[in-house]
This record gives sequence, structure tokens and C-alpha cells, in this order.
Amino acid sequence: MTETLPVGRKAHVKVPASSANLGPGFDTLGIAVSLYDDVDVEITASGLEVIVSGQGEGEVPLDDTHLVVRAVKAGLDKAGCAAPGLKVTCHNRIPQSRGLGSSASAAVAGVAAANGLSGNKLTDDDMVQLASEFEGHPDNAAASVLGGAIVGWTEIPVDGTQPQYRAVKVSCDPRIKSTALVPDFRASTQAVRKVLPTSVKHLDARFNVSRCAVMLVALQSHPELLWEGTRDRLHQPYRADVLPVTAEWVNRLRNLGYPAYLSGAGPTAMVLSTEPVDEQILNEARDRGITVHELDIAGPVEVTVEG
Amino acid sequence: MTETLPVGRKAHVKVPASSANLGPGFDTLGIAVSLYDDVDVEITASGLEVIVSGQGEGEVPLDDTHLVVRAVKAGLDKAGCAAPGLKVTCHNRIPQSRGLGSSASAAVAGVAAANGLSGNKLTDDDMVQLASEFEGHPDNAAASVLGGAIVGWTEIPVDGTQPQYRAVKVSCDPRIKSTALVPDFRASTQAVRKVLPTSVKHLDARFNVSRCAVMLVALQSHPELLWEGTRDRLHQPYRADVLPVTAEWVNRLRNLGYPAYLSGAGPTAMVLSTEPVDEQILNEARDRGITVHELDIAGPVEVTVEG
Repeated sequence: MTETLPVGRKAHVKVPASSANLGPGFDTLGIAVSLYDDVDVEITASGLEVIVSGQGEGEVPLDDTHLVVRAVKAGLDKAGCAAPGLKVTCHNRIPQSRGLGSSASAAVAGVAAANGLSGNKLTDDDMVQLASEFEGHPDNAAASVLGGAIVGWTEIPVDGTQPQYRAVKVSCDPRIKSTALVPDFRASTQAVRKVLPTSVKHLDARFNVSRCAVMLVALQSHPELLWEGTRDRLHQPYRADVLPVTAEWVNRLRNLGYPAYLSGAGPTAMVLSTEPVDEQILNEARDRGITVHELDIAGPVEVTVEG
Repeated sequence: MTETLPVGRKAHVKVPASSANLGPGFDTLGIAVSLYDDVDVEITASGLEVIVSGQGEGEVPLDDTHLVVRAVKAGLDKAGCAAPGLKVTCHNRIPQSRGLGSSASAAVAGVAAANGLSGNKLTDDDMVQLASEFEGHPDNAAASVLGGAIVGWTEIPVDGTQPQYRAVKVSCDPRIKSTALVPDFRASTQAVRKVLPTSVKHLDARFNVSRCAVMLVALQSHPELLWEGTRDRLHQPYRADVLPVTAEWVNRLRNLGYPAYLSGAGPTAMVLSTEPVDEQILNEARDRGITVHELDIAGPVEVTVEG
């Protein structure tokens, strides 16, 4: 039985951006940061209206291919609900195609809105699954669903059915802040994935295994290990070639002792640290056209429902 | 200034065995288990006497090449102390060359004895470093020094000086027990390392990165994830070829839902779980010459000093 939701019911969603990989934790570690998209989803009598302001305004399709709309529909479907019509209003602050998980945030916003509209019929695991299906990996989506820091992984059934995207939240030392250096150009996750090699040295694989574990411990209770815990040999060395400006900033910051890494597939360079990045360096970055966001670790997606 | 320790002072050390790798955490994860060697180290007027009973009796050299003796000397040296003579008495219960960290336990016993004899001049970090130098990796030694579950890693200075062996203790869910299935043959860590490939698929590397993170979370607070968290693609598939009996037991136990893995470089198959392994299966293993130890997660090495 599909429940038709009442016209006029409206969900307001505040969804955080996220940073994935965190150095060694390729497709595994993610963290939510305090840069938010606001999305309103209202049940209407018929049709579809999509309004986008802020990031992506005038660039994204305003029809049923819009990611938030697809995610709302997937969420309603999973919750056994349907809407006669929808009005979706997005006010986006998360820069797009910059490595801050804007697509995952959009998918999470849609799924979370659907969950709110349907009376919270979905679990967090459902929301991680649905939102991650749009991405193909759970690290960004799970961070936006669960907030804080997460460990995500994918279980691939041998019968060829849908991969299961799994995640658990881990504690995060409250002293940790993030600083995002966002270049003014975009990077395609698909393109930046293509530069990864098919095989790597066993030595490099176990290097990342150990550093991913160090990073998890650093996030939880040993922030003095954030620098060691952001060392990576599985993706950043290969991506440096196609993201030279980011690589330059990551290296420069690391050489100054800041735990910097390539956020997601870039081009954002991110620092996770207990001490703020020196203002002079940030001003130099700004002078070179880089937008700097000094951010807190964010909580989970928030949904309020009226009607 | 080297302090000469008084004749008659005696340290009694109770050192736990350990299991390393825990599936995906190659050279990274370790856990101490409740199987102990007891080692007494006494300061004597001159000379060296080494007495070994239990495991290794009649097999190991009873001179200054004995690992406990070398570790005592390294520990005393680091603490700025010297002994005119030593009497070292080992009662060993940890089976040797079986993947239960007996060498690391011996090194830890010696270093911890030296620390006790010298008035606790060494830090835990010092003891991890000294004991790991005998091994070339910190995962077993750190587990025996710190107790419980540990994350270990190695930092290699570019100037060619001694690698720094680092480790931090992580919390371990008190419901987790271990079951060790110890075959009656030995495996050389060096030989079993040789079967590892030089390179691996990027897919396999990131698989292990994610599962190592899952394992850490499973140990800390999500024991329901122990099975997923013990999945590995970096060493067990290659070692199965040279350790077919162990591989058979690991696979059989895993197919029954037990989180089993190759302990260290084997040949022990280990299960970390909240539920005991079915007694019928353990009896079958015993019938095939396998020694079964049902163990708790152990605390750190313990030292008591007299005189």
C-alpha cells in the first residue's frame, strides 16, 4: 500500500557538506563539515517545480533529473509513500565539483526530506544506502546522514544485486576543526578517478592500511596524530599530476606541519587540525583566487516538517 | 653515567601472547591474549645463566644470543643501567613460531624486566620501540606492552636511522574473546612473508583500507562487525597456498559465521568473537592434532620487582 502524502506538508532540510578519504582512507573515511545546503521540499497538488539559488544556480537542470528530486522520489518510494506533486527549493552554499561532497549532500537532502515527509519511516542505514546509491560509495553520503566522522564500506553481493553501502559513526575529538581551501575550478570525480593505477605496491597498500587506522585513532582521541594519519600513497600521488595547484597547497601546508590532504577527488585542499591555519598563509591563498572556509565538524542532516 | 644495579634485585615478568594483522590490518593491528610466558630476571654478581622450561625448552640457545637476554640488555642500556651478571629463567607457555607473537613477547619480557630492574626509567613508547626493533614491526610487541588492542605503524626516517615503531592502544569491547586453533607445525615469519606479491590491485588495497577501519570500529564498539572487519585481500589469499590447513580452518569457520583469520604469519587460525566457537567444531580440530586455546583479551605486560 502506497500512502499518498497530504498537499501542503513541507520538509525543511539543513544538510552538511562532507570531506572524504581524509588522506589514506580511500572510499572509507568521511567527515561532515559546517557548510550547509538548505532544501525545502513541499507536497503540491501536481507537477514539479524546482528552484535553485546559490551554488549551481542556472547550471543544474530544474526537472525530474535534478538530484534532490531523484533522491526525494527514491526516499518516498522506500518509505512506501507518494506525492501528487513536489516543489523543491534549494539554497546551496556547498560549492559543486570541488571535493566537498555536494552531490552526496543533495542526495542526502532529498532522502532526508522524504523521510521527514513520510513520518520518519526510514532508518539511518536506509538513508545511507539510498543516498550512496547515487554516488557508488558511502563515505560522503554517510558523513552527511550521520554527522561527525564515519567509517564507510561497500559489500558487493555475489548475486549481482545492489551493493550494500554501510557506515558507522565514530567519535570525533571536539578540538578538531577543518579548513577548506577551495580553488576556483572544478574537478570531475570520474576524471580524477581515471588517473588511479590498476595496481599498486604491496608496500604502499599496507602503508595506507596502517595510516587509515592511525587516522581513525587521531580523529577519535589522538589529534596529535592527524599529520601522520593523513599520509597517503594510494590516490594523492597519482592525482597530484592532474591537480597540481591543490598538490602544491597540500604539500606546502604539510611541510609547515598542518595535516592537509586532498578532499575527496579534489580540487579542495583540506586541513583537519586543532590549531587554526596561519592567517598569513590563508591570505596568500585568497590572493591566488582560493576561497577559504574555516569550518567546524558538523552534526547530522537536520529535518523539520510542517503540515 | 651508567648505574650498576644491585646484585639480588629480581624482576618477575608476566607477558601476554599476541595476535597480529587481525585480517586486514597487515603490520597494523594487534591484540594481546591471555596466554602468558613467565620470566624472572635476577641481577647476579657475574656471568649469565639462562634456564628455559616449557615451550622452546631444549631448542633455544641458553647464551647471550637468547632473545630475552638481548632484550634485557637493550632495555638496561636505554635506561642507563648495567648488570654485573644475569640469571634469566623463562617458563614459556606461548607456542613458538605459531603466529602468537612469542618472539615479540620474549623481547617485551626482556625490556619490561630491564625497566623494572632500573626503576621504571623507560616509557611505554620506549618499550614498544626497543621490543619492536627485534621484530621489524610493532604490532605484536605493542600489544604485549600495552595490552588490549593496538594500532601500530612504522615511521622510516629519510636519513637512514632506526625506524620509529609507534603504537597507540585502542579500547576493546569487553565482550570479545579469542579462540586460537594452533596447528602442530611451525611457520617461519620470513618464509611466509616471501609469498606476498610485490604489487596488488588498487581495488584490493582499498578493500583492506576499508576493512581495517571496520575492524577497528568492530573491536572498539561494534563486535557485530567483526566478521566483515576480518576480511582481507592483502596477505591471507597468498599465504593460503603455503598454509593450506590453516586456510581450510579459517574458511570453514568463516563460512559458519565466525570471524576467523590467520593470526600473524600463521599457522594459528584465530577467531575474535562475542560467542564461543561451537564445541563440536573445536573437538574436530583437536582430533586433527590442533591445540585449542580459548582466551580472553589480555592486559599489558606485568612486572614485579624485589630487592
